[in-house]
Amino acid sequence: MVNSKNVAVVGATGAVGGAMIEILEQRAFPVGKLYPLASERSAGSTIKFMGESVPVTRLDEFDFSTVGLGLFSAGASISAEFAPKAVASGCIVVDNTSYFRNDPEIPLVVPEVNAHVIDVHKGIIANPNCSTIQMVVALKPIYDAVGISRINVATYQAVSGAGKRAIAELGQQSVELLNGRPVIPTVMPKQIAFNILPHIDQFQENGYTREEMKMVWETQKILDDDSIYVNPTCVRVPVFYGHSEALHIETRKKIDAKAARALLEAAPGVVVVDEHEPGGYPTPVSDGANRDGVYVGRIREDISCAQGLNMWVVSDNIRKGAALNSVQIAEYLLKSA
Amino acid sequence: MVNSKNVAVVGATGAVGGAMIEILEQRAFPVGKLYPLASERSAGSTIKFMGESVPVTRLDEFDFSTVGLGLFSAGASISAEFAPKAVASGCIVVDNTSYFRNDPEIPLVVPEVNAHVIDVHKGIIANPNCSTIQMVVALKPIYDAVGISRINVATYQAVSGAGKRAIAELGQQSVELLNGRPVIPTVMPKQIAFNILPHIDQFQENGYTREEMKMVWETQKILDDDSIYVNPTCVRVPVFYGHSEALHIETRKKIDAKAARALLEAAPGVVVVDEHEPGGYPTPVSDGANRDGVYVGRIREDISCAQGLNMWVVSDNIRKGAALNSVQIAEYLLKSA
Repeated sequence: MVNSKNVAVVGATGAVGGAMIEILEQRAFPVGKLYPLASERSAGSTIKFMGESVPVTRLDEFDFSTVGLGLFSAGASISAEFAPKAVASGCIVVDNTSYFRNDPEIPLVVPEVNAHVIDVHKGIIANPNCSTIQMVVALKPIYDAVGISRINVATYQAVSGAGKRAIAELGQQSVELLNGRPVIPTVMPKQIAFNILPHIDQFQENGYTREEMKMVWETQKILDDDSIYVNPTCVRVPVFYGHSEALHIETRKKIDAKAARALLEAAPGVVVVDEHEPGGYPTPVSDGANRDGVYVGRIREDISCAQGLNMWVVSDNIRKGAALNSVQIAEYLLKSA
Repeated sequence: MVNSKNVAVVGATGAVGGAMIEILEQRAFPVGKLYPLASERSAGSTIKFMGESVPVTRLDEFDFSTVGLGLFSAGASISAEFAPKAVASGCIVVDNTSYFRNDPEIPLVVPEVNAHVIDVHKGIIANPNCSTIQMVVALKPIYDAVGISRINVATYQAVSGAGKRAIAELGQQSVELLNGRPVIPTVMPKQIAFNILPHIDQFQENGYTREEMKMVWETQKILDDDSIYVNPTCVRVPVFYGHSEALHIETRKKIDAKAARALLEAAPGVVVVDEHEPGGYPTPVSDGANRDGVYVGRIREDISCAQGLNMWVVSDNIRKGAALNSVQIAEYLLKSA
């Protein structure tokens, strides 16, 4: 039950926060009053919402008892401090950071996949990582039909996943290089323009990165199945918006490509683009930027494994991978209130 | 036995042909006289070699009895017509096109992996596809130590693999987009600047592309082992030079990451770059452009499979993936002559 239709967006000046506000408007979410919140540094600017300029105010001075819903996307440490305070004030928090995702008490939700777990929330609902969301939306119909035992996944992740400064860096480095000038990386660990970096988030003891381990932990939690093995390589590519993923999965029962395609065509949130001809597949520019769907193509039986299936999955990491998914959770909360 | 130290380079004005001539000079290959050959359209220009300007002449008018060695890289149909003629004239052909690769009578060679099969050639030696070469160089030491049963691979392939016009298209599209102008693809099937295309070469009946099937057929032939299963997704990325590959392999006996790293560090042609920290891995710009090695990083045991191992492999697709590998084959021919 949502106490008030007033909504706070925490991290309103960031890439995801901005998209959240845009999507609230686009989907005509019944917002009473909107409170864009940010750090002291970003407060004072304004945000456009429903044709009006709304001032961005300071998170640390905000009274959460004035809103029913808080959409958080300002980093894990901000959520750690302010989400519990918001909940204590009677606000429901949809949190897009990694801070609460692995807490067994907190639902981790992709509405097309496991909306029902929202019902048991205790004030905070966690939004999964972008690379996990689009993967589980595409896998859910296959999982329900034949089970999944193992997922090999290699990602092609856009710079917008690393925030506005990374978007600017890709643009700036591209311009410098095309003008024959050297570049010095400041946001990304190495040059990202015209380059590929097999590294997102921190390295772990086992040699995987934290981004890779998120795909393991979150997939198991969202599908509520610890028996699914996941083996990711997460890679940053010089694309502004839209993550792509090469999925090579092993199912518990055999499914052929035709049956898989039919299941995907009927699945909520999924758009199949799968012609066996030049251009007949999803790409970030055509399907991953400013669109809501999870686009699936290159669906084919794996010639290396009797129960293997391959597919190519593209989605807008800022929308379905973050802001849209959070707003969809909020819509579910409203509907069930 | 090579009859003459004169060398013909067929396709001398292309990206790979140009690199072949550069590499012959860099490695001080004992060239008597160099004959850069091309189509009627490209003939008449000149090529720099050993400080001199050498005229590019017409392939269709060339007398192959004047050379001992022909390095071919002008497309499959050109090799189909002219390689047998060259051989009939007493010339040995190292062919970088796909035309002869699957012929069981013709050796398919990566010198670090299977140089010995050069000895049984009948005039033509085939050079494998770029994406296969760097993969088998990295896998050979693991294969020899513990066997390999299956390879899941996702590639991140540079536009130079599609030739000079594709290189120009990536540059041109990037400039247009950064100036806010629309682009119309002419070489690639869709926009390649700031985009990702899961499609290289023609689609096959089984849903894989021909580039993907090359990785299957060629890996089995080079390692002389039809029991290796290979499952590739081949993807074009907005990078000028250097292919990257995420390899997820399954071995016949267990090998841990430390042992795999030690084997790779001792392997010919391999350079290990594998620090678990930002920047401590190979990328196309730092390791894939104008370098000779096959660079390997992100070596880790697969948490989804008891006998699984992951790695990240980067190499210059024009050099080790094509021109350098051909010259290395030629060096072996000379040495064994």
